[in-house]
Order: sequence, then C-alpha cells, then structure tokens
Amino acid sequence: MKIAILGYGNIGRAAEEAVKAAPDMELAGVFHHNDCLDCIDADAVLVCTPTREVQKFATLLAARGICTVDSFDIHGQIWDLRTNLDAVCQAHQAVSILSAGWDPGSDSMIRALLQALAPNGLTYTNFGPGRSMGHTVAAKAIKGVKNALSMTIPLGTGIHRRMVYVELEPGADFKTVEAALLADDYFAHDETHVIPVESVEALNNVAHGVNLVRNGVSGTTHNQRFEFNMAINNPALTGQVMVSCARAALRMKTRGEFGARTMIELRPIDLLPGSTEQLVRALV
Amino acid sequence: MKIAILGYGNIGRAAEEAVKAAPDMELAGVFHHNDCLDCIDADAVLVCTPTREVQKFATLLAARGICTVDSFDIHGQIWDLRTNLDAVCQAHQAVSILSAGWDPGSDSMIRALLQALAPNGLTYTNFGPGRSMGHTVAAKAIKGVKNALSMTIPLGTGIHRRMVYVELEPGADFKTVEAALLADDYFAHDETHVIPVESVEALNNVAHGVNLVRNGVSGTTHNQRFEFNMAINNPALTGQVMVSCARAALRMKTRGEFGARTMIELRPIDLLPGSTEQLVRALV
Repeated sequence: MKIAILGYGNIGRAAEEAVKAAPDMELAGVFHHNDCLDCIDADAVLVCTPTREVQKFATLLAARGICTVDSFDIHGQIWDLRTNLDAVCQAHQAVSILSAGWDPGSDSMIRALLQALAPNGLTYTNFGPGRSMGHTVAAKAIKGVKNALSMTIPLGTGIHRRMVYVELEPGADFKTVEAALLADDYFAHDETHVIPVESVEALNNVAHGVNLVRNGVSGTTHNQRFEFNMAINNPALTGQVMVSCARAALRMKTRGEFGARTMIELRPIDLLPGSTEQLVRALV
Repeated sequence: MKIAILGYGNIGRAAEEAVKAAPDMELAGVFHHNDCLDCIDADAVLVCTPTREVQKFATLLAARGICTVDSFDIHGQIWDLRTNLDAVCQAHQAVSILSAGWDPGSDSMIRALLQALAPNGLTYTNFGPGRSMGHTVAAKAIKGVKNALSMTIPLGTGIHRRMVYVELEPGADFKTVEAALLADDYFAHDETHVIPVESVEALNNVAHGVNLVRNGVSGTTHNQRFEFNMAINNPALTGQVMVSCARAALRMKTRGEFGARTMIELRPIDLLPGSTEQLVRALV
C-alpha cells in the first residue's frame, strides 16, 4: 500500500512515523498543502492539514479515485462532511474515512459498542488532562496575552475544569487579563483558573487522555458498568489511527465498498495487517 | 425483525428480555433444543444452547436461510466453527454471527481496536471477579465434593487466582478433597485456595467482570496506555450482545453480505437501532 501524507505539522509527522512502522505500507511522499496535488501518486492520502481545509483536499483527491483519511474534528459538522465526500467517493470509486482520530474516532467506536452492550443509560466522555487547542487559541486572543496554554482537566460526568497558563505581554496587568479571559464565552461556563507563568513554552507537552464511562441496562438488568481509559501522546495516537484507517479504506475499496465513512462504520479487523484467519485466531 | 430463541437457560432467558426491550424487534418464540426446528418462523435465531451443540443447530438453521447468533466460547475452536458455518451461510444466503458474547465477543472488538491504536505492545485480559464455568465443573467432579463454585480472581498481567468453595459429601475428608483438587490439571498451574462451606447455593451470583490492559507503541511513540474495565451481570450482558448482533446479521443479510462472521468483523454501527445519520450524529 502506497501511502502519501498531505500536511506536515504535528499530526503529519506522527503519521509519517506510523506509515514507516507499518509492515504492509510504503511512504509515497510527504506533500505540503500548496504543492501540486496532481503529483501525488499513492493508493491513499492522509490529509493532515488544518481541519477546515480537509473537505477541499479530500474532495480533490477522491475525485481522482484516491482514498483519503482525515481527522476532521468539528463534531457538529461531521455528518455534512460525510454527505459531501460520500457523493464524490461514490462517483469516483474511492473510499474516504473521516474524523479518524481518537475523539472523534476510536472513542466513537467505544461509545457505539458500549451502547450496544447496554442500550439504555448514560455515557460520559471525560477528556484530559491535556491541552485544548480551541481554548488555547481563545486564551491567546485575549489582549495582553503573549502566549497561553489551556489544559482540560476531567471532573467526571462530562464536566471539565480549565487550567489556563498565561504569559503576559510586557506591561500587561494580570487582573485585567484574568477578568477578560473569565468573561470570554469559551471559559465563562466552566470552572476556570488563570495562572501567570514566566514561560508557556516550558509547559509544552502533547500528553492527553480520556476516561469514558457508561452505566447502562442490558435487557432488563440495570447497573452494567463499563469504563475506558487512556493516557497517550496525542499526535502519535492520531497519526497511528489515520494509518490504521488507511488500511481499512484500501480493503474496502478492494471489496467495492466505495463511499465516505466514519470509524463507527468500520470493521475493527480491517484496521489491522494480517489475514482474517490470523486475526480471528489471535484476537477473538 | 422477528427474533426466535433456541435454548432457555440463563442466556436464553436474558436474551428474551433483551429482545423484548429492543425497539425494532419482536419475539418469534422460545424453542427448546428438542423442539421441531422446522416450526421456527423467524428472521434470526439466537442459539442459546450449550456451546458444544451450537454448530449442529446453527448449521441446520443457516441451511434454511435463517440468520443465527451464538455465543460459542471455546477460543481454540472458533476458526473451525467459522469455516464450517461460512460455507453453509454462503450457500443459503444467510448470515451467522459466532462467539457473540463478551469474551469472546465485545472484548475481542476492544482487543482489535487497541492493537490498531498501538500496533506493537502487549494486551493483558484479566477476568473476574466472577465464576468460571469450566473450573466449577472440574471442582464438582472431585470425589467427595457435593457442590462447588470456582471464582476467578484477576491478579493482573493475565494471571488469575482460583478461589474454590466446596460443599462436601457427608463423611468426606476436607484435606483429601483439597489435595485432589490442587493436583487436578485445571488448578495445578494457578494459585488456588480451597475453602469449605456449608452451602454453595448461598454464594450464587452471576456477577463478572474484566480488566483489559494494553501498553503499546503508536508509530515510534512508546508507553501509550489503554484500559477497559467492566463489572456486569454475565448472562444479561451475553443476551444483550446476542440481540445486538442479530440486528447486525439482518442488516448484513439485507446488503447481501452473506457468511459467518466474528464480532471483530462487524461494524459497530450495525449493532444499534436507528439510521446512519442519527447514529453518526449521536456517537461520532
């Protein structure tokens, strides 16, 4: 399987390592978003651009019959992206796996499975400890902030604390910055703590995690309890998920199962190298 | 979806409750293993017989084009069962989901997913606390034992302690029974404790659980940590898994995807009622 990478930030670099580590793949090149897409000669492309550019690039590639994988992460827009990409994939016999990261992504598969195990009940997805990109960008936009880091801390039942570390511009007043940040819509609804630091760079860490809990009912039996935890390097996991999904995309294309799909629509076995017999014997 | 149940032990009873609770199913009857199978009029049959009778009944039903789900649980024989049932299903346009319980079953899906998230590394499946059927049967076969219960206690890294509660026959010598049990091949390789009790019936409890742990490598990044825990009513979960898999089987049949499949070969979305759009919006 010849796999190319489009975009070379944190995720693109991690995806490159995962492609090189895969026993059944070879790297067909790393491309930047302003390179000529027609030059890409690959079975599948991992679209590692910023999330808002995913649809444009995935559409262009799928229209050439090339399979794509992205980690598009705006939950509320996933269905629309799937609808748009699906039409292109069906027309050009391609497979596009979208939102292939850990949330959305592998967490989504866990949520679907746990709902099948106990159909009535509540699932809580608790994120972190780890950096929130959206909140970090919002904190950096506050007047007087030179650099910032917003950590997401899980408090259970889907409630999160925001720990915001700010490095001030020279002459900026901390109390003024703190008040502006606490009033920002990104932070106004959560417990938020603002902490002045000398250097945000010194806090840099791509660790993240999740605690996903379901208490539900199987048949008529209540109090069935399930929990999924992980503590991971965030870009490394995202890159690996994309690589595993590229394998699934190419298998689906071989079977003629064209279209755009999210991870809850994939068979776990398709994510892994090896024959059906090997994998059933090893994992079932 | 008209769903029938064949076999009416702990699992059959739990499966009946799960069928009745499903919004998209109706119960097409409960049948005993010596009933006339030709009388079964259903889209799918949940085969809840003892595991060694699964192949016979699933084969007879699939040969009539009826989808089946079983929870066959002898790990080393799953591939052979799949091979045999697959041929019948392909010939008669049926779908058979085998080993649809929690282990093998939903745990298998988790193991496959975790291997896709961190391809190098070790997964440990730790069972319990809960009753082991095989060890309980072995303990009951010891001379001087009237009734027994063997509990599996997880010690981590796939190592288990056996807590064996024995109710003695009148006149039996506990030390003799204990020595015979500890020498039995079922117990000789694990840490085993034998405890005499007045009544094994008073200890009866269908609680069980699992702690499934993986530490692996995503790309070139080590120490990616994952953990799945559950604490559940065993037959209730098994019955529910079978019902969710019956839904998947019928969807696969509608799409013309005939054959015998294990749970790692199923799409999580197929286990759940609702449209693709509803489920993607709710779970991804």
